[in-house]
Amino acid sequence: MDVDARVEAWASLQRVEGLRPRAFVDLLKAFGGPVEIRTASRTSLARVIPAETADAIRRGAEPAALERTLKWLAADGHWLVAWDDAHYPAALLALPDPPPVFCYAGRRELLNQHAIAIVGSRNATPRGIEHAEAFATALSDAGLTILSGLALGIDSGAHRGGLAGSAGSIAVVGTGLDQVYPPSNRPLVKRLASDGGVLSEFPLGTPPVKANFPRRNRILSGLSRGVLVVEATLASGSLITARFAADQGREVFAIPGSIDSPFSKGCHRLIRDGAKLVETAADVLEELGLGSAEPKRTALPHAGADANDPAGRVLAALGHDPAGVDVVAARTGLPADVVTATLVELELGGRVALLPGGRYQRSGA
Amino acid sequence: MDVDARVEAWASLQRVEGLRPRAFVDLLKAFGGPVEIRTASRTSLARVIPAETADAIRRGAEPAALERTLKWLAADGHWLVAWDDAHYPAALLALPDPPPVFCYAGRRELLNQHAIAIVGSRNATPRGIEHAEAFATALSDAGLTILSGLALGIDSGAHRGGLAGSAGSIAVVGTGLDQVYPPSNRPLVKRLASDGGVLSEFPLGTPPVKANFPRRNRILSGLSRGVLVVEATLASGSLITARFAADQGREVFAIPGSIDSPFSKGCHRLIRDGAKLVETAADVLEELGLGSAEPKRTALPHAGADANDPAGRVLAALGHDPAGVDVVAARTGLPADVVTATLVELELGGRVALLPGGRYQRSGA
Repeated sequence: MDVDARVEAWASLQRVEGLRPRAFVDLLKAFGGPVEIRTASRTSLARVIPAETADAIRRGAEPAALERTLKWLAADGHWLVAWDDAHYPAALLALPDPPPVFCYAGRRELLNQHAIAIVGSRNATPRGIEHAEAFATALSDAGLTILSGLALGIDSGAHRGGLAGSAGSIAVVGTGLDQVYPPSNRPLVKRLASDGGVLSEFPLGTPPVKANFPRRNRILSGLSRGVLVVEATLASGSLITARFAADQGREVFAIPGSIDSPFSKGCHRLIRDGAKLVETAADVLEELGLGSAEPKRTALPHAGADANDPAGRVLAALGHDPAGVDVVAARTGLPADVVTATLVELELGGRVALLPGGRYQRSGA
Repeated sequence: MDVDARVEAWASLQRVEGLRPRAFVDLLKAFGGPVEIRTASRTSLARVIPAETADAIRRGAEPAALERTLKWLAADGHWLVAWDDAHYPAALLALPDPPPVFCYAGRRELLNQHAIAIVGSRNATPRGIEHAEAFATALSDAGLTILSGLALGIDSGAHRGGLAGSAGSIAVVGTGLDQVYPPSNRPLVKRLASDGGVLSEFPLGTPPVKANFPRRNRILSGLSRGVLVVEATLASGSLITARFAADQGREVFAIPGSIDSPFSKGCHRLIRDGAKLVETAADVLEELGLGSAEPKRTALPHAGADANDPAGRVLAALGHDPAGVDVVAARTGLPADVVTATLVELELGGRVALLPGGRYQRSGA
């Protein structure tokens, strides 16, 4: 990568303490670009942002740190992706507080693919991790890049599964990209950096700091069409990601589990709060409007058969020839339990007759 | 029990083929009581109901069958409970098609207690049956009589659990009360008939007929404040009971489980369709408004703190002294994940500052 003045300006601005996304927007509006901001006078900067932040911009990044960043950027497949970059994800631009610039290692073309976040507890059950992998592969094969947070457990399973599918996987991490946390995920990070991606809004050198992870989660959810929580305790950070997703207008999906498992309690809470309960990858795709449109069975047109009136539909489908529940279900397209319940009501009301063998017939009355 | 003319008239009318609940109401309105109906002329009956039904009433029940009913009723704790009986359940009267009369063996005082139905698959998992028992005992101890359908699996577990609690259990069955189906539940029926109850709208002698069970389910749900489905396949009759419950304005509760288990698929479908996901008996009681009102934590009153505005509440609770997420959660009564997400947003907006150690402070801006 050719590290030019623009990239160097972004690398420096990324390290300015106290420069919040919204102030950054104001600066870009006022000055046009990162180089213009870096070379603006203190006086003109201070018209837009607080004086102490203007001072920090004038000082610029600490030379050793900046040097390290530029060296990292010189390597193949390492990028600084800024707001004005064609590869900057459109999904992030829609957020109230998109990161002005982030570090990225990997395939930039993945940044603007449809994506879904798959997250969950670090200490998940073995079956939960298998579910994460299986959902990730199926959704990746359906064209959704799998995002997750590189934690052990569910996150790692999601990355592996996403890489195994066709749309790949991106880890959104809470440290600088020259750090790997947890260290045991070094081989996975290497695969992601070559076949998928690794993304961080934190400057190089940022160590794992607990408080940075929730902030990272807003990027994870913001990049996604939806967030799928596979297994989560009530204390899991996945619930924070899910909450960001809901606030950002993203879908939230959760996989249920045994009421005896602490790793399902977070998912159950999400479902009670309105998350979609999903059992298969197809459920997720359908909710996102990406499902392979299952052929909808529709009622045959009958005079007087209101589509919202099961009794009318059942009567219309029944006719006066005896028919069983299965036949009526097939004719109306209604689930068997709806048909059964409706037939019982109609029978009690004397409008259909129950014949030996469990078949029904319209009655004369 | 003193089998008098009134009971004999009810026993006879119960056996009239084709006499539907609604026609029965019309007859009672027209003639006042069962003896009056039995002794009315064909002509006056036929003014209210079809002529062939009037003929059937005039003929009366087959003498041997009637004899058998009267003999059964002569035994201790056996009853024919009719609309005009003080023990007739008020919950059933609210249905559009209450059974005019039903057979009952057991403690009549249970018929007007608050009740909940606990149902599920016959071939449930051992853990599912344990859940049925545990929920039933806890809910019975909370004053809810446990209703179920006497099937093997979940139903039997629910009855055992209900009997172990203080409010007992009633089986609502789809056969005549002189039949026991399944036969292996004979010991359980014996316990129910002495310590709880067994109820059927079908006349004595009615064998197990598949088509009668869905019809029975509307009584099961109708008697209940709500229906709890513990484990159910997609083909389970429990889904029919749940559907009746929803139609009757009752609450529907379902226990989630592994997405790998066919016995949870019915529950998951119900949850997707709007049933309440429950993990504990306390969840059920709370939804029914019977919970031991958990002390609700409310936000401290602060000027400008809108209860629906987490950011305002968090800011108000934070003040300018550094505080961690736990402290802010305790002060606001908001869940920790809401507090964390809100603090991240506020920090990104520059309204709070993140200090070393993960504590937050209102910032001057």
